[in-house]
Amino acid sequence: MTKEELFGIKIDQPDEAVRRQVQANWDHVAKPIDGLGVFERITAQIGAITGTQKVDIAKKAVLVMSADNGIVAEGVSQSGQEVSAIVTQFMGKNQTSVGKMARVAGADVIVTDIGLVGDEVYVGVRSCKVAHGTKNFLKEPAMTQEEVLQAIEVGIRTVEEARRNGYKLLGTGEMGIGNTTTSSAVAAALTGCPVEAITGRGAGLNDEGLARKREVIYQALSWYGWADGAGVKAPSETLRVLQTVGGLDIAGLVGVYIGGALYHLPVVMDGLIATVAALAAERLVPGVRDYVIPSHKSREPASGLIMEALGVEPVIDAGLALGEGTGAVMMFSLLDIAMALYESEMTFTEMQVEQYERYEK
Amino acid sequence: MTKEELFGIKIDQPDEAVRRQVQANWDHVAKPIDGLGVFERITAQIGAITGTQKVDIAKKAVLVMSADNGIVAEGVSQSGQEVSAIVTQFMGKNQTSVGKMARVAGADVIVTDIGLVGDEVYVGVRSCKVAHGTKNFLKEPAMTQEEVLQAIEVGIRTVEEARRNGYKLLGTGEMGIGNTTTSSAVAAALTGCPVEAITGRGAGLNDEGLARKREVIYQALSWYGWADGAGVKAPSETLRVLQTVGGLDIAGLVGVYIGGALYHLPVVMDGLIATVAALAAERLVPGVRDYVIPSHKSREPASGLIMEALGVEPVIDAGLALGEGTGAVMMFSLLDIAMALYESEMTFTEMQVEQYERYEK
Repeated sequence: MTKEELFGIKIDQPDEAVRRQVQANWDHVAKPIDGLGVFERITAQIGAITGTQKVDIAKKAVLVMSADNGIVAEGVSQSGQEVSAIVTQFMGKNQTSVGKMARVAGADVIVTDIGLVGDEVYVGVRSCKVAHGTKNFLKEPAMTQEEVLQAIEVGIRTVEEARRNGYKLLGTGEMGIGNTTTSSAVAAALTGCPVEAITGRGAGLNDEGLARKREVIYQALSWYGWADGAGVKAPSETLRVLQTVGGLDIAGLVGVYIGGALYHLPVVMDGLIATVAALAAERLVPGVRDYVIPSHKSREPASGLIMEALGVEPVIDAGLALGEGTGAVMMFSLLDIAMALYESEMTFTEMQVEQYERYEK
Repeated sequence: MTKEELFGIKIDQPDEAVRRQVQANWDHVAKPIDGLGVFERITAQIGAITGTQKVDIAKKAVLVMSADNGIVAEGVSQSGQEVSAIVTQFMGKNQTSVGKMARVAGADVIVTDIGLVGDEVYVGVRSCKVAHGTKNFLKEPAMTQEEVLQAIEVGIRTVEEARRNGYKLLGTGEMGIGNTTTSSAVAAALTGCPVEAITGRGAGLNDEGLARKREVIYQALSWYGWADGAGVKAPSETLRVLQTVGGLDIAGLVGVYIGGALYHLPVVMDGLIATVAALAAERLVPGVRDYVIPSHKSREPASGLIMEALGVEPVIDAGLALGEGTGAVMMFSLLDIAMALYESEMTFTEMQVEQYERYEK
């Protein structure tokens, strides 16, 4: 995919007539008006995205992008780079957190190696390696422009494949030691928020580690010219942010959101890394945001700030900082419960009770 | 139960050693420290409540209290009083919102008629009627002191029965037209917050209805002597608040919380009515709060205010206003997903990855 092709993508608007129809269906269900609150609006959004009031989210998958980040050489993480591959390997066998949780939620996990350092091929892991990890962005850009575009394309193709396999609702997940550093760097560049406000402890850095992580991000933003607090808005500059201080996993997820919008599949956004990717996707291809469904506000400080920038509100606020797509899985489960009511046949008429009226606001 | 017996109840403190052990178990699971955030703390709380690190929440039930409220004669609700009985009847057959949602979440719904107006007996509904609805509290106290005590006792006995039937985790639910009015009145009296700040639209009142509801509550608080904004703290005065402006459903739920604390069963708190009942229970029998698990922050303004007074934080924030215990059911589902990870055998050792260290705060 070329830069011109990426910026040339046009996103359809979700179908407003279907959205209104789903909301009207909710009003017929025997419960107070808007009784399921945000869940009514989200199911209406899913209807509008998929173009049918018969909302169907039965077949679900978390799309996980795994990649290594060169910046770990700077000591921004507790874990060594080898952990990305180990966890990815177990993830392919559904033996990590997201797999265990997804089983309970009735969802699948589709893992893609989009840029681990090693050449090993793992059972249950799609091989779509764009590079053997990224470069240390304190010394050189993390990727070439070709690489970042290729990673975005991998994300789009992953959604296309999921659609062919019958998935109706997607979630985003990731694995890559160092990716709260890359995500915080991208978040600071895109929003213009101060590095101290946006950078957290990741998997559990101590004070010294956190200071180091902030210093690394600040140095990089200064070097590449984004430390002025203005915030990057233009598509081509957004692409340059992803390329220089981002990661292959983030770029892959950017592609997943764009793919969701292209193929009319709703995508549930997970925590920090996924949230940053959603903001980048919206800046690259305006309109993608309408296809994104929020899940939780993570413990990482950037999470809430970016959701504000995206104009979406999280449903779950539990200080999660696990990654892998686990927050998206929790949201799957809540949506399934909401759908049990939407699909129910019990209307006011059947209960012989008068329907509630919407009050004038 | 006499007033003296109620105030004589002593609640054990949850087992702190078990709480620490569960937290230590979480730290061994292959994920970042505190990665599941609030869910780790809640499972540790459940361990501390039940006295075992083998946290078991497999068998779950929502305990629904159904009752009528005399205050509906004042036009504080869109629906007529007959709706309480109709919904309760369908609830007994698992055909209302909470039943449909609980089925997806793998939970049961146990419905108790604690004070519906009519004498009908419904399939699947326990008959524990304390009175044929409450009185109109603008004209006389909603209940006698004997009635409010009896309703609390019904709640305690309901938990005792659930424990005998093997339930490990309970949730609170309610059905009773007019019960956002009684709850808001109790909330305003207990917290001292202004009636305007605490009273919402319930199932969807228009501006006129909302003004009427606030006026009714304010009049009652003035009449009974709680309009000074001081907030009721003493147990005997709390009981008088429940008796005069509360409801049989609220009092029943107060008993459910006390029963949970007595029988060491964790109780997941639902929305407005359940939250008010939890605060009242804690004021009547200090220590009950430690056995309460939050779920969601409802659309009703009192919900967040009371959780603050209780010192608990909601996990779900989705503007729910459905009642019946539906928010508790959503929380059940999230806890099940968290438990899938707690029970997992995949530790750092097995993954051959070094365990994360807790950083010094």
